[in-house]
Amino acid sequence: MLTRADNANIDIAALMADMGARARVAAAPLAIATTGQKNAALNAMADALMDGQADILAANRSDMEAGREANLSSAFLDRLELTPDRIAAMAEGVRAIAALDDPVGSVIAAWDRPNGLHIERVRTPLGVIGVIYESRPNVTADAGALCLKAGNAVILRGGSDSVHSSRAIHACLVDGLEKAGLPADAIQLVPVTDRAAVGEMLKGLGGSIDVIVPRGGRGLVERVQTDARVPVFAHLEGLCHIYVDASADRDMAVNIVVNSKMRRTGICGAAETLLVDRKAAGTMLAPILDALDAAGCAIRADAQVRAAWPKAEPASDADWTTEYLDAIISVALVDGVGGAIDHIARHSSNHTEAIVAEDAGAVERFMGEIDSAILLHNASTQFADGAEFGMGAEIGIATGKMHARGPVGVEQLTSFNYRVRGSGQTRP
Amino acid sequence: MLTRADNANIDIAALMADMGARARVAAAPLAIATTGQKNAALNAMADALMDGQADILAANRSDMEAGREANLSSAFLDRLELTPDRIAAMAEGVRAIAALDDPVGSVIAAWDRPNGLHIERVRTPLGVIGVIYESRPNVTADAGALCLKAGNAVILRGGSDSVHSSRAIHACLVDGLEKAGLPADAIQLVPVTDRAAVGEMLKGLGGSIDVIVPRGGRGLVERVQTDARVPVFAHLEGLCHIYVDASADRDMAVNIVVNSKMRRTGICGAAETLLVDRKAAGTMLAPILDALDAAGCAIRADAQVRAAWPKAEPASDADWTTEYLDAIISVALVDGVGGAIDHIARHSSNHTEAIVAEDAGAVERFMGEIDSAILLHNASTQFADGAEFGMGAEIGIATGKMHARGPVGVEQLTSFNYRVRGSGQTRP
Repeated sequence: MLTRADNANIDIAALMADMGARARVAAAPLAIATTGQKNAALNAMADALMDGQADILAANRSDMEAGREANLSSAFLDRLELTPDRIAAMAEGVRAIAALDDPVGSVIAAWDRPNGLHIERVRTPLGVIGVIYESRPNVTADAGALCLKAGNAVILRGGSDSVHSSRAIHACLVDGLEKAGLPADAIQLVPVTDRAAVGEMLKGLGGSIDVIVPRGGRGLVERVQTDARVPVFAHLEGLCHIYVDASADRDMAVNIVVNSKMRRTGICGAAETLLVDRKAAGTMLAPILDALDAAGCAIRADAQVRAAWPKAEPASDADWTTEYLDAIISVALVDGVGGAIDHIARHSSNHTEAIVAEDAGAVERFMGEIDSAILLHNASTQFADGAEFGMGAEIGIATGKMHARGPVGVEQLTSFNYRVRGSGQTRP
Repeated sequence: MLTRADNANIDIAALMADMGARARVAAAPLAIATTGQKNAALNAMADALMDGQADILAANRSDMEAGREANLSSAFLDRLELTPDRIAAMAEGVRAIAALDDPVGSVIAAWDRPNGLHIERVRTPLGVIGVIYESRPNVTADAGALCLKAGNAVILRGGSDSVHSSRAIHACLVDGLEKAGLPADAIQLVPVTDRAAVGEMLKGLGGSIDVIVPRGGRGLVERVQTDARVPVFAHLEGLCHIYVDASADRDMAVNIVVNSKMRRTGICGAAETLLVDRKAAGTMLAPILDALDAAGCAIRADAQVRAAWPKAEPASDADWTTEYLDAIISVALVDGVGGAIDHIARHSSNHTEAIVAEDAGAVERFMGEIDSAILLHNASTQFADGAEFGMGAEIGIATGKMHARGPVGVEQLTSFNYRVRGSGQTRP
């Protein structure tokens, strides 16, 4: 097992090129592996995670000790820490992926041509996926399992602070692959912590990586987007808006706003800005802001909101573009749904926006005119989640518009091809 | 109108950034334009092309004269030349795009969640598309019309050799946009021939370009793939294979091979390599190669084929990876469908491959194990075409696996988002 101290002696470019080549070789049998084989591997991985709990916890203790010595924040250490419950949840997550429908080989569309050709559009694996993530060691299992279910080989590069935990989890995944007769190289973990390894992955390992999935904070995602020479499923920040129309049911608006902001403040689907229809300022603002305040949320507002609800702090320009991921919300009045659409077009990260309204015309404008991955009517922004969509596990929520958009689940980790069946047709 | 001589006085980066910003502004009303508005614009464009025929022909004469002075090849000049028939075909092409279904707003999938949420996946425009092309001036009309139909703004950068023709065609497109009340900036043509403009487009014009579509030869596509900092729908070469199994109907095999190679040799769906099942060498090789020879095709073959059909020239290693786009074919014997799959995995550009066979097992292996955009059974490779697939006009055939694969028509020029309708749901 390599450690940080070994890095200096290693030719990172050669190591990574070799991993890429091995992933590419593994991708071929994976692409045609049966559903039964893949599920057998996944269930064996879950068993191995449960059986290997002691080893995983021991590895995690090393990471936690090093993290405490390095004075990592308590939030960071919380993400890093594994417990028997968290390991059991990880194993259950892998079993849940086994239970999903296999996307590979499913016919997305089929049609006949006048000349008798029968055309099918069929899901196929993408090939080799590179996943670059930070402190949460459970991503090792989630990402490995999702990529395998979609018939892809994967190269995982976890954060250096969780390296021992990730290695222990990865050993369980390889165990599952081998028990099912699938190539061990189907799920590889970069064995070094040198950041140069990330740079090599972003260059695509000589054509061996088909797509990069970054999972982490803004700094990581921005580095990946700037430096990647291969396609990226980028998850930018979730600067989610919730708009309360004058036609909204007031109690529903209060419930949805509080849930959107406060259920969990640290997830990408948490609301960061509340927009209230100016026509409803007199009736809606006070009950919504009182409820947020009672729930412990700090409120930063424009001058008009503060005139109606003086307890709010003044919002600066930066507040309209800040993903707080905390119990803070920015609040502005807007001129109806048109004003909300304008504000969102200027400031949104195009992740998720919600409208609370009873007026059908306002709802249709909101749904039809805003270019964000997820738009919700009379529902909490916190439903922005692959599992809540019924798509099973997700590897992230893509904010780009190419290929995958919104929750990236097992279907989004596939491509497709056309299979055309004829009876001797030639083209005139 | 700017000419080549003006380029030196122009700040290309500023000019392109301004075009990008204007495209982004135009994209918003386009995204919500009605089908009727877009079709009115397209039909007005077709009218303007017919009415403007004299101007277009005059502009084309300037390009043709300059091209002859520059000693451009006759093949190049043929692609460049416009005639009244070609202009009429261009106008008909634009009307055919008007007749296509509007993809924007169509519901791709819809489902309900146990908590009562109704989720729809709805097609949306991609945004702003950059199209970089070479000598064929008709791409100006095709690409402009396709992007418009899908609700996208487009920045067109045509080849410098066809600049006058492209400008005359572009003027007709703008005329149509204006007649339908759509923004003229929806279809912009880069007004300078400086190659620095391409460099700016590949950098994405400060986030204004969502995807680049290169249309041209290998040099252009490779430059785009190397330098692009935004997603690319790349059309690499079509190194298409046709495999004749021992189970094939011999007459069908002869017809399909000759059509795949010789119907039109210059298109990306033309076959470049013929693979014949070793078990059928004695029965299949001679009739197929005799027919190709009679049709005027040069044959380059491995030693085993030459032993059976001595008239063939010897194939070099390079022949297995050469897209001839000419009346030349490389021919090898392989060990059944497994041998064909191996050869294709090593040498294919993953564009289009065909199998001629009656044995269902061989067909299923070929269809299931080869990772190319289009796979055909008992049909000519020359069907690799959006119109032949019933998808209407195409902007190219994508050989990548992300987002669009195979023919890139109006649907492939869209993205999608999720629209979720609730009745007050909050997340537990």
